[in-house]
Amino acid sequence: MKPVSDIDHLIAQLARLPGLGQRSARRIALHLLKQREQLLAPLAESMRKAAESVRTCSRCGNLDVQSPCAVCADPGRDGATLCVVEEVADLWAIDRTGLFRGRYHVLGGVLSAIQGKGPSDIRADQLARRVAEEGITEVILANNATLEGQTTAHYLTQLLQPLGVRVSRLAQGIPMGGELEYLDDATLGAALQSRLAL
Amino acid sequence: MKPVSDIDHLIAQLARLPGLGQRSARRIALHLLKQREQLLAPLAESMRKAAESVRTCSRCGNLDVQSPCAVCADPGRDGATLCVVEEVADLWAIDRTGLFRGRYHVLGGVLSAIQGKGPSDIRADQLARRVAEEGITEVILANNATLEGQTTAHYLTQLLQPLGVRVSRLAQGIPMGGELEYLDDATLGAALQSRLAL
Repeated sequence: MKPVSDIDHLIAQLARLPGLGQRSARRIALHLLKQREQLLAPLAESMRKAAESVRTCSRCGNLDVQSPCAVCADPGRDGATLCVVEEVADLWAIDRTGLFRGRYHVLGGVLSAIQGKGPSDIRADQLARRVAEEGITEVILANNATLEGQTTAHYLTQLLQPLGVRVSRLAQGIPMGGELEYLDDATLGAALQSRLAL
Repeated sequence: MKPVSDIDHLIAQLARLPGLGQRSARRIALHLLKQREQLLAPLAESMRKAAESVRTCSRCGNLDVQSPCAVCADPGRDGATLCVVEEVADLWAIDRTGLFRGRYHVLGGVLSAIQGKGPSDIRADQLARRVAEEGITEVILANNATLEGQTTAHYLTQLLQPLGVRVSRLAQGIPMGGELEYLDDATLGAALQSRLAL
């Protein structure tokens, strides 16, 4: 009989987190349980606080402790450029580069016939409304380079171009450090077609 | 500017857990933050409860919501056989096999000259006392098959044999599903030396 109740319950919950399985959940639980005062209790408190304070930005869909989020509320941001991303994780990734100083719009998903996801599931109307109301002049479609991501980008292009806004998408090509020998044909093909004159 | 304070704090704490890095911590945090009511708050509550209820068994060193732990308190267990393990994780692993029905003793570490860990750091005295007081007739040393684990097992053998108790260790050999071609020499050597007559 191994320890039950609270411990097993904790492990079961941890095992459902993305990237974790039964083994890693057990390992993490034991690590935390061995240092209950120093690690487990503070982590529980951080989670409780985050669950209470974090909200979805009513404007862009970002997650933050305030709504509108810090990005939307920042007057130093360029309000004329909007970067459209699929998920909050993508927003954070782009913002970490420090190279984009506009605002964002989180779709919260992609168009997918298989999963029955249509335009209303990706906040497409809100996007069109923001473009019209916020005086946006360029929309950068930062969709994933997946089939569904590109389908979504294509749909959004059709939706936005009639509004008289410039629509662009992220460049596709060789990733930094990429070696031609090991690249897939599609990436190499895209890099060739989008070659830059020197 | 990406979201700050509560979110960053949560990610930083998650990133320090074993097996997780910055990326996986961010992924888990986002997963939890997207389902604050369904996932994050319940997990925080589970952790808070576990931090409060779980304690170290005063007898064997196991982690449980009671002390003595469920294993020590179970009258159906064979009180004459003691399995010595390095960590609580090892205790759980052995107990999951369902093949051992005695009780345990968690060392909480191994002898290590480099890390300055001596007999007092592995609860060796408590082990000797338990063997003497609890009428134990066999001690199974379930140390890891590492250099330090085996050094510790050797030390414990010297400590326990004068007490008139039978001391055994786990068999070493080919793991289930193991293919000879890919096994290391030491494992193959151990399997050869411990071969069983048929």
